[in-house]
Amino acid sequence: MAEYIESLQNLAEQFGRLNGVGRKSALRMAFSVLDMTDEEAADFARAIVDAKERIHLCPICQNLTDRELCYVCDDATRDRGVICVVSDAKTVIAMEKVREYRGMYHVLHGLLSPLNGMTPDKLKIKELLDRVKDGGVREVIVATGGDVEGETTAMYIAHLLRPLDIKVTRLAFGISVGTDIEYADEVTLFRALEGRRDV
Amino acid sequence: MAEYIESLQNLAEQFGRLNGVGRKSALRMAFSVLDMTDEEAADFARAIVDAKERIHLCPICQNLTDRELCYVCDDATRDRGVICVVSDAKTVIAMEKVREYRGMYHVLHGLLSPLNGMTPDKLKIKELLDRVKDGGVREVIVATGGDVEGETTAMYIAHLLRPLDIKVTRLAFGISVGTDIEYADEVTLFRALEGRRDV
Repeated sequence: MAEYIESLQNLAEQFGRLNGVGRKSALRMAFSVLDMTDEEAADFARAIVDAKERIHLCPICQNLTDRELCYVCDDATRDRGVICVVSDAKTVIAMEKVREYRGMYHVLHGLLSPLNGMTPDKLKIKELLDRVKDGGVREVIVATGGDVEGETTAMYIAHLLRPLDIKVTRLAFGISVGTDIEYADEVTLFRALEGRRDV
Repeated sequence: MAEYIESLQNLAEQFGRLNGVGRKSALRMAFSVLDMTDEEAADFARAIVDAKERIHLCPICQNLTDRELCYVCDDATRDRGVICVVSDAKTVIAMEKVREYRGMYHVLHGLLSPLNGMTPDKLKIKELLDRVKDGGVREVIVATGGDVEGETTAMYIAHLLRPLDIKVTRLAFGISVGTDIEYADEVTLFRALEGRRDV
C-alpha cells in the first residue's frame, strides 16, 4: 500500500495504530486527510495535540476532564452519597446515557488482573478509599463486568469497604457476561442499575 | 457521547469527518489518542500536517507524490508507450499490486458526470491529451469502472484520442476471480457473456 508516497504511508501507519483500525481503513483515512483543506487538516492536527494537552484526570473521581473538576464532580445537584466505580472513562459515558443515575463516579483505570501485572496499586483504588474515608458516602456501586477481572475487582473493593460500614452493591446481570459495559444498550444498563445487589 | 469533555468531543468530531468513520468509531479513536504518549500524539499530528504539506500532484501523470516526480514517472524502466488512465490515486495503488503492469499512469481526479458538475474541464483530461500529443504513446488503457460515469468518461477519452491514431483500450469486464457465478449481478454476467473467448 502507498509505499511509494512516504508521507501518505506514514500517515496511514499513524491511523493504523488506533484501536480497531485495520490497514485498509487506515489508508482510506489518510486519503480523507488529503481531501481536506489545509485549514481543516491543521484543525485536525491541533485537536489531537489539544486533547492530549488539556485532558487530565479529575482529582476527585479520576475521570477524564479538560476542566479543573470533571462535570459530574463539579455539579452540585449530584448525590455525593453514592459512588459508582467503573473501570474506565468510556463506561462513565455509557452510564451517563441512562440519565437515571444522579450519583458520583470513581474511575479505576483498569481492572485487577495480577497475572497481567494489574495489581491494586496500578488502579485508583487508594483514591477511592480516601474518598470514602472522608465521609458522606452511603453506597458504592461497583459497575465492573461479569468476567473474571470484573468480579475479582468487585470482590476486592467490597472486601476493603466492608470494615468502613459502607453499603457495597454490584450491577445486576442484566448485562450479558463477556460484554464490555461501554457497549451495553441503555435499557440493559438501566435494568442492571435498578437490580443492583449487596455484595 | 463525551459532550462534557470538550476537547475529547472535538477530537471525536474530527475523526468523524473522515470518510467512512461513524460516531462510535470516532469516539473510540479519540480515546486511543488519549492512550498515546505525548510524543506519539505529536507524531500523529505532525504526520497529518506533513502529508498535507508535502503531497502534491506529479506534474506528468497527476498522481499524488511527495517527490518532484511520482515514483512511476521517475522510473526509467517503465514503458512510456502505454498510459493507464484511472479516476484516482487509490486505483493506481490497486493496479500496482498486480505487478504485471509496467506502463505509466494518468490520474483524472474524478469521472465525467455533467449533472453533478463534473465536466471535462474539472478533470485532468487536457494534461492527458498534452502527454499523448508529445508523442511516443502507443496505447491508452482506460481503467474506469463499468458504471455510467466510468463508461461516459471512457467513451469521451476514446473520442478525443481517436484522431491522434492512438490505440485506446478498456479493462475487460466479467466475473471476478473467486466469485460464485450464481452471485454475480446481471450486468456483470451480461458483460462476461459479451466478452467471452475461445478456450
